Amino acid sequence: MTERLIVIGGDAGGMTAASQARRLRTPDDLAIVAFERGHFTSYSSCGIPYFVGDVVDDLDTLIVRTPEDFARHGIDARIRHEVVEIDLDATKVRVRDLESGTEAWEGYDQLLVATGAVPARPPLPGIDSANVFGVQTLDDGVRIKNAIEETRPRRAVVVGGGYIGLEMAEALVVNGIDVSLVEAAPQPMTTLDPEMGAIVADAMRDMGIHVFVEEPVEGFETSGDKATAVVTKNERLEADVVVLGLGARPNSRLAADAGLEVGERTRGVVVDQRMQTPVEGVWAAGDVTEKLHRVSHEKVSIALGTHANKEGRTAGINIGGGYETFPGVVGTAVSKVCDLEIARTGLAEAEAARAGFEFVTATVDSTTRAGYFPGTAHIKTKFVAERASGRLLGAQIVGREGAAKRIDVCATALWCEVTVDEMLNVDLSYAPPFSPLWDPVLVAARKTWQAVQG
Amino acid sequence: MTERLIVIGGDAGGMTAASQARRLRTPDDLAIVAFERGHFTSYSSCGIPYFVGDVVDDLDTLIVRTPEDFARHGIDARIRHEVVEIDLDATKVRVRDLESGTEAWEGYDQLLVATGAVPARPPLPGIDSANVFGVQTLDDGVRIKNAIEETRPRRAVVVGGGYIGLEMAEALVVNGIDVSLVEAAPQPMTTLDPEMGAIVADAMRDMGIHVFVEEPVEGFETSGDKATAVVTKNERLEADVVVLGLGARPNSRLAADAGLEVGERTRGVVVDQRMQTPVEGVWAAGDVTEKLHRVSHEKVSIALGTHANKEGRTAGINIGGGYETFPGVVGTAVSKVCDLEIARTGLAEAEAARAGFEFVTATVDSTTRAGYFPGTAHIKTKFVAERASGRLLGAQIVGREGAAKRIDVCATALWCEVTVDEMLNVDLSYAPPFSPLWDPVLVAARKTWQAVQG
Repeated sequence: MTERLIVIGGDAGGMTAASQARRLRTPDDLAIVAFERGHFTSYSSCGIPYFVGDVVDDLDTLIVRTPEDFARHGIDARIRHEVVEIDLDATKVRVRDLESGTEAWEGYDQLLVATGAVPARPPLPGIDSANVFGVQTLDDGVRIKNAIEETRPRRAVVVGGGYIGLEMAEALVVNGIDVSLVEAAPQPMTTLDPEMGAIVADAMRDMGIHVFVEEPVEGFETSGDKATAVVTKNERLEADVVVLGLGARPNSRLAADAGLEVGERTRGVVVDQRMQTPVEGVWAAGDVTEKLHRVSHEKVSIALGTHANKEGRTAGINIGGGYETFPGVVGTAVSKVCDLEIARTGLAEAEAARAGFEFVTATVDSTTRAGYFPGTAHIKTKFVAERASGRLLGAQIVGREGAAKRIDVCATALWCEVTVDEMLNVDLSYAPPFSPLWDPVLVAARKTWQAVQG
Repeated sequence: MTERLIVIGGDAGGMTAASQARRLRTPDDLAIVAFERGHFTSYSSCGIPYFVGDVVDDLDTLIVRTPEDFARHGIDARIRHEVVEIDLDATKVRVRDLESGTEAWEGYDQLLVATGAVPARPPLPGIDSANVFGVQTLDDGVRIKNAIEETRPRRAVVVGGGYIGLEMAEALVVNGIDVSLVEAAPQPMTTLDPEMGAIVADAMRDMGIHVFVEEPVEGFETSGDKATAVVTKNERLEADVVVLGLGARPNSRLAADAGLEVGERTRGVVVDQRMQTPVEGVWAAGDVTEKLHRVSHEKVSIALGTHANKEGRTAGINIGGGYETFPGVVGTAVSKVCDLEIARTGLAEAEAARAGFEFVTATVDSTTRAGYFPGTAHIKTKFVAERASGRLLGAQIVGREGAAKRIDVCATALWCEVTVDEMLNVDLSYAPPFSPLWDPVLVAARKTWQAVQG
């Protein structure tokens, strides 16, 4: 008898799982249907700011696989179909065809919830105006790009200085738009420690972006269905377009309404090591789930394509009859604004304190290549390590070309739970075009070890 | 009473140790004298090809610290002074002043042998001609650069296709010289597996370098004190200048003559974890020592500034009364030829076989950034892993801009002795300007794990 897998959500988590399960089970053995409420399947949502900023011209290049591609692999991916209800007892879902408005119940043997994340949208007056955009799906990207092309905005305000806020601010400013960024915290990039975030703020100001910090948004002035200004604690910033960069939260309402367990604090769907929910045959993967942070030991919700793909692969292998577990995350992230590269992994100071660690820190200014080599650039590296053991807890890097990807060494070190003492002699590569003789990561490890020793 | 430390060799290993010891002990407590037979102290020998190739104009930028700098820190560094004999029983060294030709015995309480490496120079007819250059010290670099400027050679032959050979070939070709590179093996870069080395050969040919493989050098035709042609098995290549790139071997003759233990196979001075030789108070650091390869468990001789600095730091801390050990190496190296980046760590196939491992391999073609992102470039990544356990044994990367430094993740993974299974979900950074969604390293881990599973 053919089993039926229904996948809710047609992007990274869902379609990676579908493809993986298909590799392990034939269509005769497992039918796979995926419902996606948007217009696109399997796309790079991380590419949206670059699409809006015209770094990437062609929308199609952001799409990894279309429904036609999936059909060729025996996966029935239906766009513009929204699952509006899950009935766990009856093992069926209610699906709305967003084009026709009709609804139908579809039965499943296995169900994968991969509904992703939604941009945080606090209940502020005017926030639902037509020109206030969240950035999560490719449909969001298309809407923003169309709005820019059609309305030719002169002024934009980006609300929130996280990755999306930064990248969108750059995308808008390169479109010739006058951009302000407002952030409630004392600096943008609150996933960095304040002094590292301050460097980001400076770089944005150098690009001509007006950066307002400690300015929580209180509401929006509107005219008709449009916002006309963003009102913060002390400012009133006129805006023709507003972009929300306040982070994303798991899009878990559907799952929660069905009775699936959702983390109290994370709002992410609870899964086991194999990405199965407490209900057998019901799985979840991607931004909608909560994940283990391997350093803090807390459950976290982090919306990132890498995690979504890895979780999707894990779910797909298990649905396909194989065995795979997802080991969690260490909070790695990388971004750039103009030519400033920004990367972090593990715990920043505030996070380490919240997790109960006693820690030391060290910060190192160095260069990306040998100091004498053409193209050498500044790189600032900060480590956080447990005071008692010397174990690395987190790393942050801010610098110019060639700086950021060094964070991967730190992420690997966190993964392996090594001490900064063990790190400081690691045999990292050196040649003048690639690194100073002591790679900045090694210098940071050495300085942090000195701090550990007191 | 003031102790006296004598350091033999004024570059990375020796002077790092001297500086480190000085930080821990005052000149009243420990006098430090360093003897260097060349004209320079503490320089970047890895920068020599870039100095010859005019990428770096100014010789001074390659010098980290001059004798005057050391004097200010209470270290007496004497250039053009060669230690020609060590008397371990009498705890003194015989020093020749190379300017005056006079000699004197100098007593020590602690001795550090940091005599570095010398370019391999097989006993072939004509190899000692005046225009056949090794590349090891900054004096070598100056000699080559002067020879190029004075004799304006039209044709150069580089003998040996290792890092130095590659980098020197590029340096010469950018000087407008017609360059041939001859290599005894089937491809240059024998530290890579053959199919990876073949890519390097292609890149060199694209630069206009004539690459001759499987052509061991048999001798040199000479006229007066100059070589005029390089004779290989099947070729006769006319040459106005010849550069040796046949690797380097520990410059351990002085130590061996004194009775210090030297590895049978490595010819490197034998040291313990703290860089002390079996003779108490006699230390060694840098290219002259043999090192533990943490993957093969063999002793190896690898001449690299990074190791020399780390060993020098270790020796200096211990001489200074502290405690530090040097944990060994995993064989990481990086280079570039034109815009081709080349990196490796751990064991290549032949090395893994020689060490007794049963292994599998996997090779992955990917991109350095998201496939759609401007500036994305090809990267080929190869992994070698133990068949039974899945433990990573080695990695090789060949690719364009942004490729090579990824080797550091593999070096860190080797350091921590993890399996490719443990690696494939590591939380590496992702954003479209920096990586495809699955970093090539993760894809290589995944494919290698599949190979392990058979």
